[in-house]
Amino acid sequence: MAQNIYDDPEFFAGYSRLRRSVEGLEGAPEWPALRAMLPPVRGLRVVDLGCGFGWFCRWAREAGAAAVLGLDLSAAMLARARATTADPAITYRRADLEDLDLQEAGFDLAYSALALHYIEDLPGLLARLRRALVPGGWLVASLEHPILTAPGRAGWSVDAEGRRTWPLDGYAREGPRVTDWLAPGVVKQHRMLGTTLNALLGAGFALTRIEEWAPTEAQVAERPELAPECERPMFLLLAARLPTGPA
Amino acid sequence: MAQNIYDDPEFFAGYSRLRRSVEGLEGAPEWPALRAMLPPVRGLRVVDLGCGFGWFCRWAREAGAAAVLGLDLSAAMLARARATTADPAITYRRADLEDLDLQEAGFDLAYSALALHYIEDLPGLLARLRRALVPGGWLVASLEHPILTAPGRAGWSVDAEGRRTWPLDGYAREGPRVTDWLAPGVVKQHRMLGTTLNALLGAGFALTRIEEWAPTEAQVAERPELAPECERPMFLLLAARLPTGPA
Repeated sequence: MAQNIYDDPEFFAGYSRLRRSVEGLEGAPEWPALRAMLPPVRGLRVVDLGCGFGWFCRWAREAGAAAVLGLDLSAAMLARARATTADPAITYRRADLEDLDLQEAGFDLAYSALALHYIEDLPGLLARLRRALVPGGWLVASLEHPILTAPGRAGWSVDAEGRRTWPLDGYAREGPRVTDWLAPGVVKQHRMLGTTLNALLGAGFALTRIEEWAPTEAQVAERPELAPECERPMFLLLAARLPTGPA
Repeated sequence: MAQNIYDDPEFFAGYSRLRRSVEGLEGAPEWPALRAMLPPVRGLRVVDLGCGFGWFCRWAREAGAAAVLGLDLSAAMLARARATTADPAITYRRADLEDLDLQEAGFDLAYSALALHYIEDLPGLLARLRRALVPGGWLVASLEHPILTAPGRAGWSVDAEGRRTWPLDGYAREGPRVTDWLAPGVVKQHRMLGTTLNALLGAGFALTRIEEWAPTEAQVAERPELAPECERPMFLLLAARLPTGPA
């Protein structure tokens, strides 16, 4: 079972104060880039892996999705998600993504925002997703970039001349990383970018778009605190698709 | 026209002393990983983009390739390549990869080792390659990993505790990087990994394998100087394929 850090009261309180928690999708600077990688969702059956407060589930329904299933391990997040909508086409369910059980060919689009870097068995999850998606089905996901997860001691370095760098090490050493983020002892899984992409290919997906998110100039002008994110990529955004016909 | 640094006498002398220049493919630690990404070359018509001393061209013929065309911008490298073989099925030609002119559907496999990071117009090169390859044709390439090319001032950092890190910056700022490597003023083109992959997708290739090369434990045991390469990826190895039928 995956670590359920989002139900840790200290973590949950901290997470609830993040801009992306208060403002939703519009508070997440990578959202416009991720949205641009989505197929038109009108009429689609959507599953959201790690739905959190349900912002994307509600967005997908407003954009015309036929039905949305939001999955999360955190009871606290699901409780808040359920409280924000009475839409009968949105279902929230508690689920561990390490041990997912979804209806075969029940979905057209799988979406996942910043959840896959918690998953230990990514190939297993992708194999189950492949069965849960129809032929031609899509997977669109964001995750922490491996440059962010790799270092044993993650953090910026600023030298005497004011040059800001991200001291990278451990990139090829895959496995768990324990960080103190909002609460002590948060466990993330570091995988090389190539490993993640090859896992998608190995599960039968074709890669259609790979973005290493950096803020646009307009975003930096509006939120100067984003400027350092140009020095090293923060998020990896992926779009992949299953073949439309039989393999 | 691309910079012709390999014909700079100082650079050429330095390059000629590198282990990969003296020992050929077996002296390049990433070669076993790259070789594993190649399709069986028996009977294939092969073009090598940036063939250097022709090590791969000769290997491909020994492995049964029907014909091999080696292209390079450096007259000095081509002269040495020509001097090493009398095989009539290997042709060496001087060519600028920025302005490539190849026979339409004339090749089954395009190979390129550590050359594409010198190319300014990668989408243009890939569009020409697409025309030069048959349907189902392959592209297998190695290039410097963008983590290596990104920093304005590239080099390892070792802190007081002996922790070795690669201070990364400028990852999202794409464009030329001038480094002093074997000779002053070597120009490489920094592109994000996603940009390179999306250029392949945009040219109509399907990605089939992405490796961020790191030495194996056996390699580190044999060549301890490779150990730091586990801290940050040195090479990006790519395999891509054109669709077998009409698009």
